Amino acid sequence: MTDAKKVNFNKKLHLFHDLWSPKVIAQMNDYQFKLVKVNGDFVWHDHADTDETFIVLNGTLFIEFNDNTMELHAGEMTVVPKGIQHRPYANEECHILLVEPTGVVNTGEKENELTAENDIWI
Amino acid sequence: MTDAKKVNFNKKLHLFHDLWSPKVIAQMNDYQFKLVKVNGDFVWHDHADTDETFIVLNGTLFIEFNDNTMELHAGEMTVVPKGIQHRPYANEECHILLVEPTGVVNTGEKENELTAENDIWI
Repeated sequence: MTDAKKVNFNKKLHLFHDLWSPKVIAQMNDYQFKLVKVNGDFVWHDHADTDETFIVLNGTLFIEFNDNTMELHAGEMTVVPKGIQHRPYANEECHILLVEPTGVVNTGEKENELTAENDIWI
Repeated sequence: MTDAKKVNFNKKLHLFHDLWSPKVIAQMNDYQFKLVKVNGDFVWHDHADTDETFIVLNGTLFIEFNDNTMELHAGEMTVVPKGIQHRPYANEECHILLVEPTGVVNTGEKENELTAENDIWI
């Protein structure tokens, strides 16, 4: 029997409503795919040990860097290199697929009220 | 200056037309994101050392396994575990985002006329 499972993004997105709280939907080797709903402002942070991938599924995501702000629409992606300070935000609810190694904490080095529990599967 | 680059899937998809020939659009650590256009039959193969992620962007992808066939539409994904024999095919042109470690050969262990050149960036 194969272990491959089909994952439908929209079906999974209906299963939760909390913001800035990544939900794992699939794992590839030691990397995870996580859905996140975002709206409003996140905190400045970086991930010292890993790059982090953002793929926008619905809505518009802004990522502020030290020297510019990137605007990502549905069907667009970016890889934030490790160690680069960034601050995601959205002006309306936006749905993102994150790809990153297992164990990455959403707020990076800084633990605060936006730090989400890790490894929550839906 | 940040090194993060915005990638638009549709813009990249307009840059090539060959089938079964993955084009790298982004790299995260030692993993790559690759766009592939597929139509018709691919070969049975596996990847002994790594899982492989298929995300369907447009169209319908079928993946035949030894014991069943998975049908994936736009907005759906699967991770094929390492060592699992699989055969992708499509009845109409379909556009896929692959995520896998650098250096993975599209036909796995079997080199044949469908084996594509690796690490081609667009």
